[in-house]
Amino acid sequence: MSDVAHTLVLLRHGESEWNAKNLFTGWVDVDLTDKGRQEARRAGELMAAEELLPDILHTSLLRRAITTANTALDVADRHWIPVRRSWRLNERHYGALQGLDKAETREKYGEEQFMLWRRSFDTPPPPIEADSEFSQAGDPRYADADGPIPETECLKDVIGRMLPYWDSSIVPDLRAGRVVLVAAHGNSLRALVKHLDGISDDDIVGLNIPTGIPLLYELDADLEPVTRGGRYLDPDAAAAAIEQVANQGRAKA
Amino acid sequence: MSDVAHTLVLLRHGESEWNAKNLFTGWVDVDLTDKGRQEARRAGELMAAEELLPDILHTSLLRRAITTANTALDVADRHWIPVRRSWRLNERHYGALQGLDKAETREKYGEEQFMLWRRSFDTPPPPIEADSEFSQAGDPRYADADGPIPETECLKDVIGRMLPYWDSSIVPDLRAGRVVLVAAHGNSLRALVKHLDGISDDDIVGLNIPTGIPLLYELDADLEPVTRGGRYLDPDAAAAAIEQVANQGRAKA
Repeated sequence: MSDVAHTLVLLRHGESEWNAKNLFTGWVDVDLTDKGRQEARRAGELMAAEELLPDILHTSLLRRAITTANTALDVADRHWIPVRRSWRLNERHYGALQGLDKAETREKYGEEQFMLWRRSFDTPPPPIEADSEFSQAGDPRYADADGPIPETECLKDVIGRMLPYWDSSIVPDLRAGRVVLVAAHGNSLRALVKHLDGISDDDIVGLNIPTGIPLLYELDADLEPVTRGGRYLDPDAAAAAIEQVANQGRAKA
Repeated sequence: MSDVAHTLVLLRHGESEWNAKNLFTGWVDVDLTDKGRQEARRAGELMAAEELLPDILHTSLLRRAITTANTALDVADRHWIPVRRSWRLNERHYGALQGLDKAETREKYGEEQFMLWRRSFDTPPPPIEADSEFSQAGDPRYADADGPIPETECLKDVIGRMLPYWDSSIVPDLRAGRVVLVAAHGNSLRALVKHLDGISDDDIVGLNIPTGIPLLYELDADLEPVTRGGRYLDPDAAAAAIEQVANQGRAKA
């Protein structure tokens, strides 16, 4: 077993309003539910209980990740740490699916197309129209982005825009000895975990990251995980939640 | 009247638990009250209503300013802007008075000494003991501070540690054309207003800044206020609150 050189904590945002409504969200900037806020507080309690105290926060530009991080850090008494934000940590852009009901989409397009859009590594949904109410065209937060803003994405695209930020902004903080918290989304974190654990394009399809449970990666001097897959601070809750995420998209009873 | 070249918004945190209890707070990291959170939301509504939308946030390292800013920006849909924090924007360090009841302190030491400590420009209270429960000695947030951390301060001291941050970190953002929000404290903001408006050491004693009401300063190319004193986004509430602040320290009925 290699020596621990760097400490990284990944945190997927708590339940959002559109998670609860079973809608494709992507870059639409929805809020947390009360349950999501509670998950965020619990995440802070878990970090505090293990004295896993971040020195710096990296977040996406989306409210659900920002509020989750703000809430968790406040509970852990680390509200004062520096913050960096980037669109490169945003959720996967779901293209024309943004705003659609997952169960209705499944019914309309069939199981195969639905799963291809949700889980295919390299097949993005159709791009969103700029005049859609769920488009981010004209959103001021992306006006000065350091790269082209997507109109749809597959996981491969997410990796392509996330990894440059990992290399240029997160890795230097780790190498400076900081405990780094990355508060982001199901797919931007899957992209990062795929990179860290060296997961194949095929196998990443089956990996889900639950909401609101800090995932600790201890990394060696080469930024390889000391324990593949990391460790959830609440493993039982994580196992239960992973099962629940896998059931998303099924029509509600 | 000079042309407006730069836009600066000052925001004193909403009511804190120790404001409500009438205790000297200083660097003790107390939370907002429910009223304080409501003030923060109202601050966000006022900024949104005037389309006064910050491009970057500067805060102290204290929870009551951080939470006020996070809350106001979330309401104004600007939660995603970059954040900079510095101990140099902290409240005045109240030395050995931190944690003491204001009315009791007034009674014990007399009106003259009380007002000297509260309002004198250049007389700090006695320094806090490092083993006081209200000391910040050993607080990790100050471990890497770019300067000596005070054990007590008068307003002159606050100016001395705040202005270098103004010059080095806030002014460059203004000059880059950004609308800057500074979320801070009664005395760090008094220090800044004294500098902006060229208020004398004597006259600053009588200036109070109310909690939770954004104060807009439009500055010309030389960073001089176009309108001296700026403009509160809710002038009536500001006038009423300034009166209330002036009454702090009087024994409660």
